[in-house]
Amino acid sequence: APPPAANDPMWGYFTAIAGQDGEVDAEELQRCLTQAGFTGSYNPFSLETCRIMIAMLDRDHTGKMGFNEFKDLFKALSGWKQNFMMFDQDRSGTVEPHEMSQAINAMGYHISPQALNAIIKRYNKGGTIYFDDYMACCVKLRTLTDNFRRRDTMQQGSVTFQYDDFILCTMAI
Amino acid sequence: APPPAANDPMWGYFTAIAGQDGEVDAEELQRCLTQAGFTGSYNPFSLETCRIMIAMLDRDHTGKMGFNEFKDLFKALSGWKQNFMMFDQDRSGTVEPHEMSQAINAMGYHISPQALNAIIKRYNKGGTIYFDDYMACCVKLRTLTDNFRRRDTMQQGSVTFQYDDFILCTMAI
Repeated sequence: APPPAANDPMWGYFTAIAGQDGEVDAEELQRCLTQAGFTGSYNPFSLETCRIMIAMLDRDHTGKMGFNEFKDLFKALSGWKQNFMMFDQDRSGTVEPHEMSQAINAMGYHISPQALNAIIKRYNKGGTIYFDDYMACCVKLRTLTDNFRRRDTMQQGSVTFQYDDFILCTMAI
Repeated sequence: APPPAANDPMWGYFTAIAGQDGEVDAEELQRCLTQAGFTGSYNPFSLETCRIMIAMLDRDHTGKMGFNEFKDLFKALSGWKQNFMMFDQDRSGTVEPHEMSQAINAMGYHISPQALNAIIKRYNKGGTIYFDDYMACCVKLRTLTDNFRRRDTMQQGSVTFQYDDFILCTMAI
C-alpha cells in the first residue's frame, strides 16, 4: 500500500517544492502557492512574505520543512485568508486599518492599542492594508508570539532574552 | 540669516519628503533615496527595505522623522553601502554569504555562528546576497540591537520583555 501521504492532494505540491530532502526556498514556495491557486484573484505573495512563511515553519533553523509543517502552513494561511475575505466583501484586495485591528483582536492576541497602532503603521500602504501585507503581518505575529511563548515556560507573560537568542528569534522573520 | 539647515544640501531632500510636519512614508523615502542617487548603479531600494528604515528612526512610533534623524539615516546607510562595495569589487550588486558574516562581525555585533547562519539563510537569494537585502539586514540588525540595548540598562546582555513590549519592538521592523 502507498504511504498515506500519497492520497493527499497536498502531497504533490509538497514534493514539487521540497523534493526528497525537504529543502525549501522562498522562490519555490511562492511558485507553489501561486500554482496551487491559493492567492486566487489576489496578487501572488511577494518573495518577502514567502520568506517569513518559511521562517515560521523552520523552527530549528535548518531550512527544511516536513510535510506536516507544510500542511500546517496551508491551514494557517487559509484561516487568515478567510478572515481577510470576510472584510474584503467587494474583493478589492484591501481592507481598512481598523478591520486589521479587529482581525488581530479576534485571533486572540492581547496587544495594546500602542502596539496595534505600530503594526498598522508598518503594514499599511497609503492608509489601506493589502492582502500580501495582511498575510505577512499574520505570519510574523504568529511566529514572534510562538517564539515568545516557547520561552515563557511559566506562562507569566514575560521572557528574559539573552542578546543572541533575541537576535536569533527576530532577525529571521 | 537663514537657519543653518538651509545651507545643508540634505535639507532640500528632507523637506521634499517630510514636508513641514515631518511626516514620512516609505514610498516617499524610496523616491528620495533613488533621486538623491544613493543607490547609484544598484537597483533602487525595495519598499519593504524603506519601511524598515522608517521603523529604525521612528523610535517613538509617531511616524514622524526629524532632520537630524534623516541625516543619521543617510550616514548609517552610507557606511553600510561603503562596506558592501568593498566586498563587491566587480559591482555585480551581490556579495557572498561569508562576506556578509565578515561584515556583521566587523560592525562589532557579537552574534553566534547559529544566529549568523539564520540571518544568512534569511537574506540570501539562491546563495548570494543582493544589495537591497544586505542593507535591509543591516538596518534591521541595528534597530533590533538598539531596541535591546535601550532596555538592557545594566548592560548585562539580557533583557526581560513583557509580551506586548516584545511585539512592539519586533513587529514594526
